[in-house]
Amino acid sequence: MSSPQILDGKLVAAAVLDECRAETAALQALGVTPGLAVVLVGDDPASKVYVGSKVRTCAELGFHSRKIELPAETTQEQLLEVVRDLNADPAIHGILVQSPPPKHIDEEAIVRALDPCKDVDGFHPENVAKLVLEDPTGFVPCTPAGCMKLLETSGIETSGAEAVVIGRSMIVGKPMAMLLVAKNSNATVTIAHSRSKDLPAICRRADILIAAVGRPEMVKADWVKPGAVVIDVGINRVTDESKKSGYRLTGDVAFEEVAPNCSAITPVPGGVGPMTIAMLMKNTLQAARQLSGVK
Amino acid sequence: MSSPQILDGKLVAAAVLDECRAETAALQALGVTPGLAVVLVGDDPASKVYVGSKVRTCAELGFHSRKIELPAETTQEQLLEVVRDLNADPAIHGILVQSPPPKHIDEEAIVRALDPCKDVDGFHPENVAKLVLEDPTGFVPCTPAGCMKLLETSGIETSGAEAVVIGRSMIVGKPMAMLLVAKNSNATVTIAHSRSKDLPAICRRADILIAAVGRPEMVKADWVKPGAVVIDVGINRVTDESKKSGYRLTGDVAFEEVAPNCSAITPVPGGVGPMTIAMLMKNTLQAARQLSGVK
Repeated sequence: MSSPQILDGKLVAAAVLDECRAETAALQALGVTPGLAVVLVGDDPASKVYVGSKVRTCAELGFHSRKIELPAETTQEQLLEVVRDLNADPAIHGILVQSPPPKHIDEEAIVRALDPCKDVDGFHPENVAKLVLEDPTGFVPCTPAGCMKLLETSGIETSGAEAVVIGRSMIVGKPMAMLLVAKNSNATVTIAHSRSKDLPAICRRADILIAAVGRPEMVKADWVKPGAVVIDVGINRVTDESKKSGYRLTGDVAFEEVAPNCSAITPVPGGVGPMTIAMLMKNTLQAARQLSGVK
Repeated sequence: MSSPQILDGKLVAAAVLDECRAETAALQALGVTPGLAVVLVGDDPASKVYVGSKVRTCAELGFHSRKIELPAETTQEQLLEVVRDLNADPAIHGILVQSPPPKHIDEEAIVRALDPCKDVDGFHPENVAKLVLEDPTGFVPCTPAGCMKLLETSGIETSGAEAVVIGRSMIVGKPMAMLLVAKNSNATVTIAHSRSKDLPAICRRADILIAAVGRPEMVKADWVKPGAVVIDVGINRVTDESKKSGYRLTGDVAFEEVAPNCSAITPVPGGVGPMTIAMLMKNTLQAARQLSGVK
């Protein structure tokens, strides 16, 4: 079999960010500087890395950004107060509260407290509804939005295609299914999950297979129809003593054995991951345009 | 093949209404009388029939009901005013604006103006989001809720089953898919539609097939896996000169040829139809409980 197309998320993300940079300059010429606030509660090391990278990307694009670091013992009410201040702040168009917060925080209540017009993560119920209702003024969660962008820029036809999404989370699985079945994508979509029977057979139907379960290398070669497109959303740490860090990152797909069998596939890392942050920037631009009334 | 189980919506709806009647009596003993307002704009004959039947069912259950009939030339603002009054009225727990309104009315804006806590049709964005988020305080649209109730009362196992929903409307297809894939149903769900390729083959995978497209007798015998359960949401009028009315009602499924092939099937009429109004009453009771704080 010929080599598959490697869907290079770093490359596509860079192109998206270039677009964002140009659009930011255009907005600034009209007096609007997109502003993103990132709130981090506690000191989870991985969250720190994510937050740092988001703030850095803002700087690279010419966004205004604000990093708000709060101690792990911040109360629900204190965090709500921070959210309310950001909701009211005209310099801030997008607000992101880095997940997961410490356990005593009711994350759902925090999300509901966000001004939906600034909810650039797309998790507020109003944006969930807009996604289902195919209302383009809503914010689409960044990871599924990134998957769609990868498909689109890679020239992969979704209309009439059989798509199978493994996973039914609110962050990836369900919004992914809604995006694929929407009228501007027109895929036939199957949502499969841990309770599905004969998952390999279900996956083998897919022209486009999206794995979003968080189980390292679950999808094997015989789960994939020859010539299918495989999008691997998983980012799992597995122990690897040959690495200095003691671990390596792997997706939900057994890349080495699956890749030769398919027409296109995302690597992990370097596939969906870089798209997520790029779509966050796109969402923040959309928020800045919508809130400022600039087209 | 043995005869299929006929999923008798009239019978199941009657049992649901009996439950509602008992629950209404219990609520009234606590000082709460469930109240439903039905708003009809214009004089579409079919809408008049539906509205009449809803109001009659309210009376049978001991609900308070209010029928508000407005002339076809009612303006958007006048209708919004009516909705606002009903939102504020403590005797009213459920509000239903009969669809379709006249063409000059922006139906979506009317739905958004409803108090989501009184949106017993389940079309307000807040209830759309609650359905996706699996939040049981939301209102589930009556037709898909009725389909689920039919499956449940008929002892049909959804967990691990392959369900195929034909149709991706906001009223049936999408909410149906969300209900089937939710954690308390656990079906593997495929959403198919007009752009799907080889619809018969997709449908043949289904253990549970839900047809919600509005095309008379589209689903043929060879679309159905032997032993499948078939839920027919369609209610189509087709010309029939042998009938006094000049037409007959038919579903999306070619009942005569499909029935012998499946394990259970809904008739049209008398299947999903009667369930819809029963679930409306159940939603109104839920609204009355939630708004009054009575468990």
